[in-house]
Amino acid sequence: MRLLRNLKIQFMNRPLQIIEPTILLDKKKCLENIKAMSQKAKDKNLIFRPHFKTHQSKEIGEWIRTEGINAITVSSLNMALYFAEAGWRDITVAFPLNALEIDKINKLAGQVQLNLLVVHEENLESICQQLRHPVGVFIKIDVGTNRTGLQPDDEEGIEKINKVIMRSLLLEFKGFLAHAGHTYGSRSKSEIQQIHDACLPALQKLKAYYQAFFPNLIISYGDTPSCNVVENYEGIDEIRPGNFVFYDLTQVEIGSCEMEQIAVALACPIVAKHEARMEIVTYGGGVHLSKDRLTLKNGTTIFGKPVLLNEQGWELPEDESYVKSLSQEHGVIKASEGLFDKVKVGDVIGILPVHSCMMVDLFDHYITLEGHKIEKV
Amino acid sequence: MRLLRNLKIQFMNRPLQIIEPTILLDKKKCLENIKAMSQKAKDKNLIFRPHFKTHQSKEIGEWIRTEGINAITVSSLNMALYFAEAGWRDITVAFPLNALEIDKINKLAGQVQLNLLVVHEENLESICQQLRHPVGVFIKIDVGTNRTGLQPDDEEGIEKINKVIMRSLLLEFKGFLAHAGHTYGSRSKSEIQQIHDACLPALQKLKAYYQAFFPNLIISYGDTPSCNVVENYEGIDEIRPGNFVFYDLTQVEIGSCEMEQIAVALACPIVAKHEARMEIVTYGGGVHLSKDRLTLKNGTTIFGKPVLLNEQGWELPEDESYVKSLSQEHGVIKASEGLFDKVKVGDVIGILPVHSCMMVDLFDHYITLEGHKIEKV
Repeated sequence: MRLLRNLKIQFMNRPLQIIEPTILLDKKKCLENIKAMSQKAKDKNLIFRPHFKTHQSKEIGEWIRTEGINAITVSSLNMALYFAEAGWRDITVAFPLNALEIDKINKLAGQVQLNLLVVHEENLESICQQLRHPVGVFIKIDVGTNRTGLQPDDEEGIEKINKVIMRSLLLEFKGFLAHAGHTYGSRSKSEIQQIHDACLPALQKLKAYYQAFFPNLIISYGDTPSCNVVENYEGIDEIRPGNFVFYDLTQVEIGSCEMEQIAVALACPIVAKHEARMEIVTYGGGVHLSKDRLTLKNGTTIFGKPVLLNEQGWELPEDESYVKSLSQEHGVIKASEGLFDKVKVGDVIGILPVHSCMMVDLFDHYITLEGHKIEKV
Repeated sequence: MRLLRNLKIQFMNRPLQIIEPTILLDKKKCLENIKAMSQKAKDKNLIFRPHFKTHQSKEIGEWIRTEGINAITVSSLNMALYFAEAGWRDITVAFPLNALEIDKINKLAGQVQLNLLVVHEENLESICQQLRHPVGVFIKIDVGTNRTGLQPDDEEGIEKINKVIMRSLLLEFKGFLAHAGHTYGSRSKSEIQQIHDACLPALQKLKAYYQAFFPNLIISYGDTPSCNVVENYEGIDEIRPGNFVFYDLTQVEIGSCEMEQIAVALACPIVAKHEARMEIVTYGGGVHLSKDRLTLKNGTTIFGKPVLLNEQGWELPEDESYVKSLSQEHGVIKASEGLFDKVKVGDVIGILPVHSCMMVDLFDHYITLEGHKIEKV
């Protein structure tokens, strides 16, 4: 077997050959990312309930567990079932309650402390009759993302949901959950900070008011950009970042992390080169990277950034080279002269993803730089 | 179990309840689409080698086989292995040769008539030593899409590849393969026709020249838009459309089909409604629909179109309502007043996809309107 050009992965003492699009995971970077976020939560005295929708892996979950974490966030009941099976016993599903999945809710609530997210009281009411085990309820608050949730000043809406909770012996009000997803529109740390400064007072006000009735109520907050940039968490009890385990080009662009922290790259065979337009074609397209895109500050829209693979993993990307388009299986890299000349058809190149969560969702495993296979959902 | 509002699927004489994002397949429409394209190929005296990357399903493959089809196209060697197992014996992999996958090539070439696509002669040369069974070779010609392939007038490049073919007892030159993928940038039938009119002469010229040396050479052509719109195939021997089995909003927008022909919709539970901005939130996001997007003639960028489900499948969509954004699991529908009032939280709504190939790739099965489960890759 031919060795990969520019990359040597040892697997069971043999070189592991990458022959098709494969997610390479730099475990060292990933562990550093986990440690840094976990430490920040400790320093700020916050409950750290990381979002597992990014990695979706039992094994990576165990790396996080060694930081003393025992409560997690997921984005679907299916994901909750997967992690319940892996021994997690305190799970928040940070997605609006879907009453049609009552059977899964009952199955989970019988095994773990399950917390659900509620936006409409009718919806919560509709499951009360069928519910068989205790469930925690967070009310979703819209802090400006305008995706879903109640307005922070919607006392009547909150009241209605709380009435449904009060009437049921199986429902327990846990608190308010918010996600400042509009930080992803930021292009600097100061913009992220501004969004946080605008969101925080509404959450503090909610806490001040409802704490009188619910002394243990939790304010749950924290997308990855906010959790990285912000220092003032007054009034916030819990954070739920997810993307921080791997990061990606979007997080770099918005000022949430450094390029060196990105812990996943898609390894792609090069199948064609076109010198007249300085383009490299990879086996690695929209079904591998996802069609998520990122518009850079300079106006260019990209689908990833190529990196040369080396014995330590991958080099940092050059400014000029980027993935300009994706079809189902093809990726087209617009390459600098330097990059174009360094690689040949038959080599394997790395692509840093625009959005690691979306790329990872398309695969059922990772390969670490040490050649270890890591399973996921 | 509650019946779905607006949709009754009978499965083993019980109503089948959709509780999470699920692809609904209208088999009747799909069969009509297959029949129409197959008939067009017969009328035009063309070899019909449909692209199976859209449906990726053995069962749907059998529907196509009943039209007398026995040659297919796929976009990866993995897909070729799947369909070889389903009894297909003549498979073209319409993706540039990836020499790193030589083991799969040998496995396939031992079982089926395997045709590969070549862009670079070095690449083809690199597999000659390891090749163990006969393989057909198509040379990829770039007719203006600028993704990959040789320029039609690149006699030297064609010569180089043919020399490699000549030197190997296992390689057979099959002909030239082109894909006018730039038809997807069209916004009318006449634009598609113009692209075809620009592509055809180059292919005809190639045929006229090389037919003297290779009397059986095949000119293989045909994306779905061209195959629908064009009537003149003079010089073309074979067509390879794929998307036509299901169609999607993109095909409607570019003038390739009618809204009534779309044969797949994503059924999504509604989990929230926000009247102030007339938005409906679905369980059904980027990991279900893909993040592919479509910019309409009016300038709006959409990720899908909502349709009401009924006993026959789904109604046609309204002009005003569309999917405006997707996160990992959430979809946000900008709704007309009419649509907003017709649905409630807990209902299931349909979403017509922007790009059916990309959506379908994210699932491992379909459910027909009759409640039959259809497996795929």
